[in-house]
Amino acid sequence: MSKLVKDFNLYRQKMNDRILSSDNKVIKRIYNIDANTYMDGALSAKTKEMLGLVSSMVLRCDDCIKYHLQKCKELEVTDNEFFEIAEVATLVGGTIVIPHLRKAVEFWDVLKDN
Amino acid sequence: MSKLVKDFNLYRQKMNDRILSSDNKVIKRIYNIDANTYMDGALSAKTKEMLGLVSSMVLRCDDCIKYHLQKCKELEVTDNEFFEIAEVATLVGGTIVIPHLRKAVEFWDVLKDN
Amino acid sequence: MSKLVKDFNLYRQKMNDRILSSDNKVIKRIYNIDANTYMDGALSAKTKEMLGLVSSMVLRCDDCIKYHLQKCKELEVTDNEFFEIAEVATLVGGTIVIPHLRKAVEFWDVLKDN
Amino acid sequence: MSKLVKDFNLYRQKMNDRILSSDNKVIKRIYNIDANTYMDGALSAKTKEMLGLVSSMVLRCDDCIKYHLQKCKELEVTDNEFFEIAEVATLVGGTIVIPHLRKAVEFWDVLKDN
Amino acid sequence: MSKLVKDFNLYRQKMNDRILSSDNKVIKRIYNIDANTYMDGALSAKTKEMLGLVSSMVLRCDDCIKYHLQKCKELEVTDNEFFEIAEVATLVGGTIVIPHLRKAVEFWDVLKDN
Amino acid sequence: MSKLVKDFNLYRQKMNDRILSSDNKVIKRIYNIDANTYMDGALSAKTKEMLGLVSSMVLRCDDCIKYHLQKCKELEVTDNEFFEIAEVATLVGGTIVIPHLRKAVEFWDVLKDN
Repeated sequence: MSKLVKDFNLYRQKMNDRILSSDNKVIKRIYNIDANTYMDGALSAKTKEMLGLVSSMVLRCDDCIKYHLQKCKELEVTDNEFFEIAEVATLVGGTIVIPHLRKAVEFWDVLKDN
Repeated sequence: MSKLVKDFNLYRQKMNDRILSSDNKVIKRIYNIDANTYMDGALSAKTKEMLGLVSSMVLRCDDCIKYHLQKCKELEVTDNEFFEIAEVATLVGGTIVIPHLRKAVEFWDVLKDN
Repeated sequence: MSKLVKDFNLYRQKMNDRILSSDNKVIKRIYNIDANTYMDGALSAKTKEMLGLVSSMVLRCDDCIKYHLQKCKELEVTDNEFFEIAEVATLVGGTIVIPHLRKAVEFWDVLKDN
Repeated sequence: MSKLVKDFNLYRQKMNDRILSSDNKVIKRIYNIDANTYMDGALSAKTKEMLGLVSSMVLRCDDCIKYHLQKCKELEVTDNEFFEIAEVATLVGGTIVIPHLRKAVEFWDVLKDN
Repeated sequence: MSKLVKDFNLYRQKMNDRILSSDNKVIKRIYNIDANTYMDGALSAKTKEMLGLVSSMVLRCDDCIKYHLQKCKELEVTDNEFFEIAEVATLVGGTIVIPHLRKAVEFWDVLKDN
Repeated sequence: MSKLVKDFNLYRQKMNDRILSSDNKVIKRIYNIDANTYMDGALSAKTKEMLGLVSSMVLRCDDCIKYHLQKCKELEVTDNEFFEIAEVATLVGGTIVIPHLRKAVEFWDVLKDN
């Protein structure tokens, strides 16, 4: 796995572990709900991850985008599908989304090479 | 059609016509792109409308939500699917989304009665 | 109770009931967490409601502001304390917060008259 | 003056007076700075009001937009200039800005008729 | 002091000095108000810093979070109190806040070790 | 040209080329509109770039800010004009804009030295 992806995941895991080691029940429950939301239901897990990705893009959260990109890759979102998600995000969210699109495409390309 | 839906659509149409009557080419082109984005492609029109809906919810734009709810209804998004889109929006966007969810559910229920 | 406050609470309750009547487990759990968050802990319920209020103000959600204003009133936040919360919100969030401050002060004054 | 404009200004003035009647020094100083910012300097008052308008549009604050529209009208911003400000806002901020553009154009047209 | 904290403070101080060396009166006055806001008043300085912290978290500004974390530490906010502030921020602002929570917790832990 | 500016432009160009190499027509058209928006019209290119800059500042997008700063420099925006744009952004957007102002001033100073 590339260093870009590995470093992201290592830091994310380390800090999530630290956060969950605290006694805060509300945060633990939010983490728990988060893990349960993106599962097959009326909508497929793949569709839900695409919803999570487009939400992260319009809200312009690079780390959230990276996380959902990995899930989308695992669930076999294609290149053309990814760019159509990006198209909705850029249209709805405006050109302010483009710097985040650049990082998203860079990460997406790295994921494909793994 | 209920008054809530009709009033929304009438005002929207009237003001869009007014905006497009101006000489501004950039705004016209954005409207034109907007019309072309939510069509079948690598992703289905239905999936794209769901992406538009969840984006509108996390960005907390009531009128955008209403527009995409109508499109989702036309494209046969079910009740359970709608609530799963709302679930992703509320989780990602936080409880700050809930007042917009209340209005969204009200509008959705009116659409079903038509 | 004034009509402004009563109407707000009636609509809020009606739509929350409708939302909770759906089968969506994630949304139910988010509502449940929401109810448990603003309780006495390391921080008092009053401090937590003030945190909820300032968050709602900088995120510019009128309905969220109204909800937390009622809770702040119940928990005996004073006029001067309310304006200091508003002061932090307006400083951090900018003059874009002021239209929401106007509505907040109107609602706050109505609450005091009840 | 049309009722739309008059009602907006009356409510705005009433609540601003109420806010300034409080003892909060920070909020008073923010109001004071606000009054001094949009004056001729290295940039003209007209340019600064256009900056205030486009900021209000991308941040999607209807009341802030209405306020700056009035100032822009007083400072003789033309129709074509207004639509070019709107064009930058819609491009940068995305289609999520359009519902606010509709209200802005409605208010702008009312201002021209006065 | 750890390098993470020191680098943050050095850059912040250097650029603030540069900004204040300009002739811009409005920006100087905003800096001045900022310094005066977080002082004991109807609310304690500690409570105000907690309000500043939660606002910075829901608005997802890493540098603002770091600044208020240092102030919270100086004013003896405890670990459990910090996590309850984070709990309100994550609930209100959604999972989009979590990447900023990870960085906040990392910085908080470094502050405790100093 | 300084490394800070060069690295920014190289990465931006590389990723824009990559994005435009995809088959996505909507994204290509948004890029195309973007290139056409900031041209002389009813408003001068310089005024439009200042509108783009202030929008980027209140929306807190560092990369967008850097892009518009370069354009503003090319179009001979002066130091005092830049700080007045920053003044509107900081007033309207709040102190949450200040960390982005620090980076903007750093980049602006580097541009002047080139």
